[in-house]
This record gives sequence, structure tokens and C-alpha cells, in this order.
Amino acid sequence: MKIGIPLETASGETRVASIPEVVKKLIGKGFEVMVEAGAGARAGYPDDDYAAAGAQLTDRAGAFDVDLLLKVRRPDTADVEALRPGGLYIGLLESCGDDEILSAMLAKGMRVLGMERMPRTSRAQSMDALSSQSNIAGYRATLEAAARYGRFLPMMMTSAGSAKPARLIVLGVGVAGLQAIATARRLGADVYAYDVRPETQEQIRSLGAKPIELDLGESGAGEGGYAKELSEEAKAKQQAALSDQLAKAHIIITTALIPCRPAPVLVTEDVVKRMRPGSVIVDLAAANGGNCPLTVAGEIVERHGVTIVGLTNFPALVPADASAFYARNLANLIEIMVAPSESGPVIKDLAEDDITAAMLVKPAA
Amino acid sequence: MKIGIPLETASGETRVASIPEVVKKLIGKGFEVMVEAGAGARAGYPDDDYAAAGAQLTDRAGAFDVDLLLKVRRPDTADVEALRPGGLYIGLLESCGDDEILSAMLAKGMRVLGMERMPRTSRAQSMDALSSQSNIAGYRATLEAAARYGRFLPMMMTSAGSAKPARLIVLGVGVAGLQAIATARRLGADVYAYDVRPETQEQIRSLGAKPIELDLGESGAGEGGYAKELSEEAKAKQQAALSDQLAKAHIIITTALIPCRPAPVLVTEDVVKRMRPGSVIVDLAAANGGNCPLTVAGEIVERHGVTIVGLTNFPALVPADASAFYARNLANLIEIMVAPSESGPVIKDLAEDDITAAMLVKPAA
Repeated sequence: MKIGIPLETASGETRVASIPEVVKKLIGKGFEVMVEAGAGARAGYPDDDYAAAGAQLTDRAGAFDVDLLLKVRRPDTADVEALRPGGLYIGLLESCGDDEILSAMLAKGMRVLGMERMPRTSRAQSMDALSSQSNIAGYRATLEAAARYGRFLPMMMTSAGSAKPARLIVLGVGVAGLQAIATARRLGADVYAYDVRPETQEQIRSLGAKPIELDLGESGAGEGGYAKELSEEAKAKQQAALSDQLAKAHIIITTALIPCRPAPVLVTEDVVKRMRPGSVIVDLAAANGGNCPLTVAGEIVERHGVTIVGLTNFPALVPADASAFYARNLANLIEIMVAPSESGPVIKDLAEDDITAAMLVKPAA
Repeated sequence: MKIGIPLETASGETRVASIPEVVKKLIGKGFEVMVEAGAGARAGYPDDDYAAAGAQLTDRAGAFDVDLLLKVRRPDTADVEALRPGGLYIGLLESCGDDEILSAMLAKGMRVLGMERMPRTSRAQSMDALSSQSNIAGYRATLEAAARYGRFLPMMMTSAGSAKPARLIVLGVGVAGLQAIATARRLGADVYAYDVRPETQEQIRSLGAKPIELDLGESGAGEGGYAKELSEEAKAKQQAALSDQLAKAHIIITTALIPCRPAPVLVTEDVVKRMRPGSVIVDLAAANGGNCPLTVAGEIVERHGVTIVGLTNFPALVPADASAFYARNLANLIEIMVAPSESGPVIKDLAEDDITAAMLVKPAA
């Protein structure tokens, strides 16, 4: 059975769906692996390393003409044409509903597994790309904030006087938020965090940060560990109570995302105006409209003296580890999908396993 | 007595020679302070804050027509023309010897104090701008390296597998090197450091890093705590012994500077070729020719798969704290330079104090 690893062609993408170390393991399980030349170059994995791992280097068509295509980003129209009819596709689909690209893939008789649809169960944890990539995004978001902030993050006592630690607030305490907090604590910032789910307060404290407590009259805990959308009344209450806290922050990292919904506004223009000049906001929800209305997706802008970072692909800024984690997520998934046979690994019935059943894209009704 | 604070006009410069908090203290001592409009804006200090501190906002000519001009960067020809004849000037001169700009200032009957010439005595420590700015450069250099490195700096144990800590080597353990080490340790990197002065090994260990020990047959400890230039034989020995260590590094931060001499080559092209793709070198000696021959001053380049950062003004990337520290250095210096009188502060005889005597620029013989 042939696995294909093409070069990712989305603008700004530097990741690759598998790395030499993982390719070697797949080959050990009896797969043939076709890697498009240059696929790993931007992530720090040269062609030679794939070849040494046993992969066959090929052109783009060769990487697509396979039984199982592994991808990071959503395919484009040309990709769909190049896919082998009846094949299997695994990747992030970046799609919430009906979708021409997905329909075209299904029309080719393909089976498509969306990595975003991974169930949030403990058995699926090692395959969860949203988690692994959010972890990296949270780490990198704090570094980005620190690099764009005109002062030290840690307290500094020097012969030229002392500097107070930066006051940093993280909004949304999922995987990205927790890693942003942990990294900011490493760097010595004075860290506060807020999430609509009250059970996060203990996690915040365990990282040495302080939870911001607001009384909203309802909980924002939704299904599967994700946040749910709040009522309009609770949203207004939240915004007013948060504003005074946020205006005192020197750095805000927002990570409040609700799957397939516009991101909630948490940092208003009024808050930005009240922040000290030189403050920094990193909006990890930029691609979904942003947690701040002044955020411009894909750009870094200055508004009212505050730098607002709207970059939409933080994992691509840490491409070697982001690719390594993603590749391991895929390998762990493939592990439960295949059974050995005399002629090599064969794909099991994907509807029979909870994980693959949940991930499988079904034709629109 | 009037003090002037002009806008810094050097390309890429964001710092300012004084900040509102320090301006307020100077005014409390009886100085009048003239601040050019917009002088602190890029450092995060708006005009309103200077006005609230008691400064007079003025145009550029007004900021130069003063008894005592405070500057960060070397003046240009237009600046020298605008200076008041017979006045006093304090700033970084960025000059090692004969110099038309300095000669022109002296020809106007000015007294010029060069901040680089600050003696390295404990009494002068609170006035030492090279130290305060190097401290900031070291902090920011590690952040720059972390932001350009495609992997985590800390060890990470995740459900998608673990990541090893980055192996980071700091070359040159002065003020910048020590702060680079401290920041890399905060971020969880595995840190090694090397300096020609054996007495730095204890400092390296005290920060949780490991000293690299090489036998050169001579010590590189020079006068006043600076490094001295090694003999050709010792240099060759050093380079060969270091190369194997450096080739294993994922991040190298070089800070080896010898005042008024070209920077020594410590990271050869051969080492760069041997480093893992995606590695990062931050060369803090870029302005003096670099500790790596592939460094391009003022630029970030990729050579042999390694990112080489040759930015020459790291303190300007942390302008609020860099300006605050510089402003306090100047204020501490002014403190020992003036005596109170009924008509306000007067300048003492600058030749009588060791510190100001050492800083005073003398006409070329």
C-alpha cells in the first residue's frame, strides 16, 4: 500500500504531513512511502533524510497517485484532480459544512478523514492534531508577544534600576491557552487567565498564574471539553467585567475559539484605547474573525499605540516540531486503521471504529 | 540650565535619551527640560507624558539649543550644526579614534562625554550604558533565536510524543552573554557557554548552564574586565576545539566583542555547514564584522539551511526598557556632575572626577 506525502502549497505553510523518523516507522510496517521532492525542506527535513529513511522521492503527481494521501492543509481543486479515485485521504479539512472540495473528493469515490473531527476521548488523544498544533501555537504566541513588547517580560533588577514583570492576560484556557500561560510563566511574566469554564481555574493556578473570576450567571462549558457560546446577556456582562482587567494588561493573548462559529469579541476597541502605549495583543482567533474587532487576519497592525498580531498560522512558525507532532498524530491514527496481511497492511472497516467513524466525511444529505 | 532631548534619527532607532519618569526627577533638581515633539513615541512614551512630567515640548532646533544635550546615538552633521557652541554633550559616540564629527563638536567649543568611555568601576556601574544596553541585547537575542527556531526550546512531553530541549550555545560571557544564558535557561533550553576568560565558568554554572572548557595555553582576560585579543596560535587552537561543540548546537548566540577591534571569527562556514538544517545563529557582533563570516550586518539570511541573524541594534527592539535604563544611566551620571546653586544646578569641573575625566573627549594630538 502506497502512502503519499506532498509538498504543502498553501500560502505561508511550512509544515509537512510526515517526517523522516515517522516515515521509517511506516515503512517498517510494510507501507511504501512516496515523498514529493522538497516537501520537508521548509520544516528542516531535507530530501536526503527521507531517502535515508527508505522513502521514494517523486514529483507531485507521484505523491498524489497513492492509496493513502497524508496532508496538513485542505486540498485545492488541482489536488483533488490529482488524487487517485477510490483512495483514502487524511488531513485537516478546514471546513465546517457543505463544501465543493469535499463533494468532489467523495464524487471520486474517495474516503476522506478530517483531522478536526477527531473525537476528544482519551484513546484518541495521541492522534489529536488540533491539540498538538494548538500546543505549539500557544508556545509561539507568547514568544511573538515577548518579541514585540518593548519591555522585559521578567522582573529585572539591574544597576540601572529595576523593571517590573509584564502583566500578561491569557483569554481562553484550552490547549493553546495553557501552553501560552506556561511559556509566559517560564519567561517570568505576571500571568492572569480567564475562561468561561470554571473548571479551568485549577489548571491556571497549577501553572503559577492567577485566574480572573467573573460572575456571569451561567457556565460556558460545552460538549466534549470545548467552550459553548454564551447567551447575549452573559456575553455583555462578561465584556463589562473583563474590560477593567484587560485595560491594565501589557500583553493579551486571546485563544477563544468555538468550532464552526465566529470567535467571540472579548477585547473591545475601548479596551485597546485604554491599554498602555506599546502593549501587545496576540489574537489566536484571527482566522475566525478574532477576539478583538481591530484584529486583521494575517497581519500585524498598530491601533491606538497597541500592536495587534493577527497571524493565522502559528504552528507554521515552528515547522519542525509542528510537523513532527502532526506526523505522529497521523501515524498513531494509521496504527488503529490497518491490519497486517501477507501482502502488506490493509485498511480495516472505517465505520467500525469510533474514531475513524467520527472522522469520516459523509455525503451531504 | 536647559537639558535637550531630541528625537533619535538614526535608521531603525526607536530609543530616546530620557523618559518622563527621569525627566520629572531632573526638573526636581532645577533643570529645564526641552523635549522634541515625538521623541519618545516609538519607545512608548507619548508627548503628553513628558508634558505631565514638566518638560517643554519643542521643535528639533529647540531641543538642540540647550546647555546640555542628551542623546542615544552618534550625532550627524546637521546635529552638530544645531548644537549650541560651548555646550555640553553626552551620548554614545560610536567612534574609536579620530573622527570628523567629534572634531567639529570640539571646534565649537563643546565638551563631549562619550558613554562608551565610562570606566568599569563599581562607582560607575549605575551609569554604564554599555552594560545596561548589553543586558537588553542578550535578553532579546535569545527571544529572537527562539522565535526563528523551528522547534521548541524547552523539553515537551505531549500525547503526540516528546520534544528534546534545544541545545543552545552562548559564545562570549559578558553582560549580554549572561542575560542570553539566563533567558535561554528560563525558556528551558539545554545551555552551554564559552568565554576565553576562565573566571566566567563559575558565572555560567550559577545560571544553570554548562561551561565549555578548551585548553588554549593562554588566558583571554584583558584589562578592566573586557576580553583581550588572543594570539594567532591560540585563536587557531580555539577554533578547532570549538568547532565540534558548535556543530552540535541548534542555536548559537555569539557576543564576542573586543572594543575598537574587529570581532573574532568563532563560528566558521564549516561549522554552519555541519549544523542541523533549521538551526539559528544570532550574531551580536554583527556591527563589528561578526563572529561568523557569513553574518550580514543588519540582515537575517539563510546559509546552508541555517538562519543567521545579523541585526545590529537589539536594544532598539526593546525600546521602552532600553530607553528607561539609558535614561537612568544618564541621570546617575548627571547626579555626580552638578552642584546645586541659587540659580539652579551648575556643572562641576569635569576633569576633577575620575568618571567624567575618563569620558571626556580630548582633541586629537
